[in-house]
Amino acid sequence: MLNIIKIGGKVIDDPEARQAFLNDFAAASGPKILIHGGGKIATRIATRLGVKSTLVEGRRITTPEMMSVVTMVYGGLVSKEIVAALQGLGCNALGLSGADGNLIEATRRPVGRIDYGLAGDISSVNRDFLELLLSHQLTPVVAPLSHNKAGQLLNTNADTIAAEVAISLAGRGPLSLIYCFEMPGVLRNAQDPKSVIPTLNVSEYQALKSTGDIFEGMIPKLDNAFRVARTGVMVRIGSAAQLPQLLTGQAGTVLSCE
Amino acid sequence: MLNIIKIGGKVIDDPEARQAFLNDFAAASGPKILIHGGGKIATRIATRLGVKSTLVEGRRITTPEMMSVVTMVYGGLVSKEIVAALQGLGCNALGLSGADGNLIEATRRPVGRIDYGLAGDISSVNRDFLELLLSHQLTPVVAPLSHNKAGQLLNTNADTIAAEVAISLAGRGPLSLIYCFEMPGVLRNAQDPKSVIPTLNVSEYQALKSTGDIFEGMIPKLDNAFRVARTGVMVRIGSAAQLPQLLTGQAGTVLSCE
Repeated sequence: MLNIIKIGGKVIDDPEARQAFLNDFAAASGPKILIHGGGKIATRIATRLGVKSTLVEGRRITTPEMMSVVTMVYGGLVSKEIVAALQGLGCNALGLSGADGNLIEATRRPVGRIDYGLAGDISSVNRDFLELLLSHQLTPVVAPLSHNKAGQLLNTNADTIAAEVAISLAGRGPLSLIYCFEMPGVLRNAQDPKSVIPTLNVSEYQALKSTGDIFEGMIPKLDNAFRVARTGVMVRIGSAAQLPQLLTGQAGTVLSCE
Repeated sequence: MLNIIKIGGKVIDDPEARQAFLNDFAAASGPKILIHGGGKIATRIATRLGVKSTLVEGRRITTPEMMSVVTMVYGGLVSKEIVAALQGLGCNALGLSGADGNLIEATRRPVGRIDYGLAGDISSVNRDFLELLLSHQLTPVVAPLSHNKAGQLLNTNADTIAAEVAISLAGRGPLSLIYCFEMPGVLRNAQDPKSVIPTLNVSEYQALKSTGDIFEGMIPKLDNAFRVARTGVMVRIGSAAQLPQLLTGQAGTVLSCE
């Protein structure tokens, strides 16, 4: 079983939670890929550097200055610290941006009503490169950065990268995508962390969306996740603090395509 | 012929010189490895972040805060921008710190009269990993960062990394190490850029050192370079602006071990 595991900003920002997660990740047997978000470190570094966070209608715009910051923080600080920590735990990690080995090609998001700046929409994932690394017992650690194959780095959402990496590898054998975040899974009642739904199918998801019971921030994540599940990949969602239980199916939510 | 090419800070800091160098590097045929320094960008970013450059007896100390800055700048900004630029030029580059794939293990420099902080002295280079990448037509781009295999990144001089990478690969077949810097080669008279010495052997080098004719900043570079030349690697020194001529032996200084 190849496990593709995505961790978000909250885990990265908390040194103890990060180390605990990396201990569990390093201990997981078999081939694995880690996709990491950036966390709030980029925003903090940007503020300290005097780089303004530009928001349009509440959405972040990647200006050239902000692209430099996320390249430093996601591709440098976060990536290399995770890789060094995993190496210390006996996991032969290799940090990658989408430019490295031409891993993730993207096109700059077309300017419509909003110009998102240097935001990249993924056009392809280099499956052969991932297979090469995995076949040599290397563990890819992927930062949320893509490139346009013409010299420009682009900022790309880590959830989307995890989805596209999983889709690119679909069909190679048993494959699981695990989205780790702060909650113990998809909740029937957003206010009650005990209301984890063990298995969620598409029609149940649509029903939860229509009643508004689902936490709004979860919707893009679950839309992405169901898109992956439809390709035959097992998709699980749960807490980064419960990685061992997520790996054995004893925690979190499994998406079902029935 | 495998070419290992080291570029320093001045080329990295100048966008036009950097792009011209990368054009020439991408056009060079055969397997190749690029080792890059950090340039003054790290100092500028550190200043903007309010991270003090700590100097003891004129030598820079890598405090934990400075280690974060060089990790961001060397391993993130400089590395990923070079990789994206090379990908745009058709060169399948892969950016690496010493932690990635356990490329460069080091030990923290022992505290003697001076405590250099998080400075790493190289203990081993992972030749098998480099061979794997080269055999798949990947071009390693190596940042001046090592790690201690216990979770800690360390700051390591790029000239030394270039030397140790070359020594680790000595004996695999024709191998050349090219140190690129601002000067057109080793000069007989430091004031006269036309006084390039085409071939320099150890006794000539000792004579130049004893007369003080050699530029002082060149001495550690040349000591390193002769150490590599003694292992049978062809070592050349010259200007980053003359890479094509350096590759064909029509410019710069070749070190001779006779």
